[in-house]
Amino acid sequence: MRDVLADWQPVIDDAIAEVLPREIDEQYLADFFGAPTYAYDPDAIQQALSDPIWELLDRGGKRWRAVLAAQLFEGFGADPTDYLQYAIIPEILHNGTIIVDDVEDGASKRRGGPALHLEYGTDIALNAGNAMYFLPLKIITRNGGDLDAETRLEIYEMLMYELNRTHLGQGMDIWWHNEKEIQATEAEYCEMGACKTGCIGRIVARLPAIITGQTNEVEQRVAEYAEQMSIAFQIGDDILDIEHTLDQAGEFGKEFGNDIREGKKTLMAIHAAEHASASDTARLEEILWADTNTDEEIMEAIEIYQSAGSIDYARERAEAMARQARERLPDEQLDPAIAERLAAFTRFVIERDK
Amino acid sequence: MRDVLADWQPVIDDAIAEVLPREIDEQYLADFFGAPTYAYDPDAIQQALSDPIWELLDRGGKRWRAVLAAQLFEGFGADPTDYLQYAIIPEILHNGTIIVDDVEDGASKRRGGPALHLEYGTDIALNAGNAMYFLPLKIITRNGGDLDAETRLEIYEMLMYELNRTHLGQGMDIWWHNEKEIQATEAEYCEMGACKTGCIGRIVARLPAIITGQTNEVEQRVAEYAEQMSIAFQIGDDILDIEHTLDQAGEFGKEFGNDIREGKKTLMAIHAAEHASASDTARLEEILWADTNTDEEIMEAIEIYQSAGSIDYARERAEAMARQARERLPDEQLDPAIAERLAAFTRFVIERDK
Repeated sequence: MRDVLADWQPVIDDAIAEVLPREIDEQYLADFFGAPTYAYDPDAIQQALSDPIWELLDRGGKRWRAVLAAQLFEGFGADPTDYLQYAIIPEILHNGTIIVDDVEDGASKRRGGPALHLEYGTDIALNAGNAMYFLPLKIITRNGGDLDAETRLEIYEMLMYELNRTHLGQGMDIWWHNEKEIQATEAEYCEMGACKTGCIGRIVARLPAIITGQTNEVEQRVAEYAEQMSIAFQIGDDILDIEHTLDQAGEFGKEFGNDIREGKKTLMAIHAAEHASASDTARLEEILWADTNTDEEIMEAIEIYQSAGSIDYARERAEAMARQARERLPDEQLDPAIAERLAAFTRFVIERDK
Repeated sequence: MRDVLADWQPVIDDAIAEVLPREIDEQYLADFFGAPTYAYDPDAIQQALSDPIWELLDRGGKRWRAVLAAQLFEGFGADPTDYLQYAIIPEILHNGTIIVDDVEDGASKRRGGPALHLEYGTDIALNAGNAMYFLPLKIITRNGGDLDAETRLEIYEMLMYELNRTHLGQGMDIWWHNEKEIQATEAEYCEMGACKTGCIGRIVARLPAIITGQTNEVEQRVAEYAEQMSIAFQIGDDILDIEHTLDQAGEFGKEFGNDIREGKKTLMAIHAAEHASASDTARLEEILWADTNTDEEIMEAIEIYQSAGSIDYARERAEAMARQARERLPDEQLDPAIAERLAAFTRFVIERDK
């Protein structure tokens, strides 16, 4: 899986560079955004958009959303290299959310470097992140000649459905951070994941299904595959945060005990609140709620998770979600070799850093 | 003009409340965003989206974008009350940009209260602001039954054109803040205004033109009317910031010498850099560049603008832009009484607080 991702990355980055070049000039601006009424300032756009965005992309990231979209195009019998311009849409959206999330969370690090807002300022970073919400949507229009009007509209309506739910998921997650009591249920947690992470996953899956003309049922099945896998990924990410804290591995690009410091109501926190003793739950809520935590407090919270069996439970749920994701794959409509690879993805997302 | 705005405001707020109710429940969430896979948390959405957004709206704002759109619907012979759901699209977008801009600028006040990110936290405020970028776009789909497929696609493609340029304009403006030297030209300044403020203005104008089936030429003319008027508005806003600073009127809801403190490269700054003495220009750049300014420094910058004739020049340019905007109105396609009101709007935007 790692090889597949590594093979695709340069090709995907080339496709992104066609939409947002590393070097901005007037010609690109006029072609992509339309002729100016007066005069663009290409140098300002270079510094305000291209430089920060390419810095983030060049720091890494596996581009798995674009790779997965490319695989789905191939699975549906299309040559994925003909559709890379569409495969990068969810990838750019995702990287935009990373910049915005880091501002929202006051994060200090990202992909081994300072969070973008610390390097470029909140203003530049945030505008670049938000530009990445709209820039990829322009691709549908810009290359509209490739897609008929009905398909373009179907894509826009799909995108508006998914991108609205993204903000519901993020809103739920943030609000829970800001509450002391752990009130969310497991179902609400799963919905949060389905919206916050899952909606961009669903875009990954629905775009190739729409563009290659699959039935609504097939589109729905791959959307569910991506949604379940995204929730599994989200839970896996939360487990990784704990595991890396236990390993004290500083190379993860995140802080020690990051999720606990942020007060994130992970599935582990929700499970612990339901299964730990009242005093452990109260202590856990205390630690998650505090503005700052000592390393000892971080370890104390993790021990509460461990003794309530919450880490194991979360791992089981992630595995079950990944299994459900595999079952949603419309195997009969997919090239068998690709179907196998898509199934392998569901394992990869929860085992990726072991 | 003030009366027209005051009459419309409650009606417009009712239309916004249909898209985002003051009280969130499961029924609304399922209707507007689609059925949940698991379970939404309406209470979290209440706190994370509805409360902060309605707090901002209830603090004021003239809703002139929605009123202008309603006037254009009427001008094109439609009953505006039938189209309020579309008239509110640019209004919600605009209020979203306000929240995001305040985070970007680190603003402390907004409409007489604390900036939203100071009251609700950066995470809640920013997610609410970004949700307001996508929420109104869902209206096109949600009420898709009212509009044929061709019209819906035309609207989406128009919105993607305009919302992409918004981020170019904001990027240019921010980058100039962050540079010490005043390098932007007047043409680049106008482009910045055309993109940053103008694009939402253009949405105000193009939506009614598309929905009422006007020709491309008429759509283009009203778009230019709105664009010119928006630039005039932007220049007018910059002049007001200076005038209120001179009056030391604290009720403006902004800080004393806000634009100078932010280092904003207004048309006045650009004009002064071209017309003031080298030493005055260097001093002006120094003040705009500094992280903090004393009140005396703010006054010093204003005196440089005054002695270079830059405030008068900016006022002339704003008036000329407003005049050009009036000339772009496609009078022959518009109801005469409404055409007169639309012309009056161009005066209102630059004289609104005198």
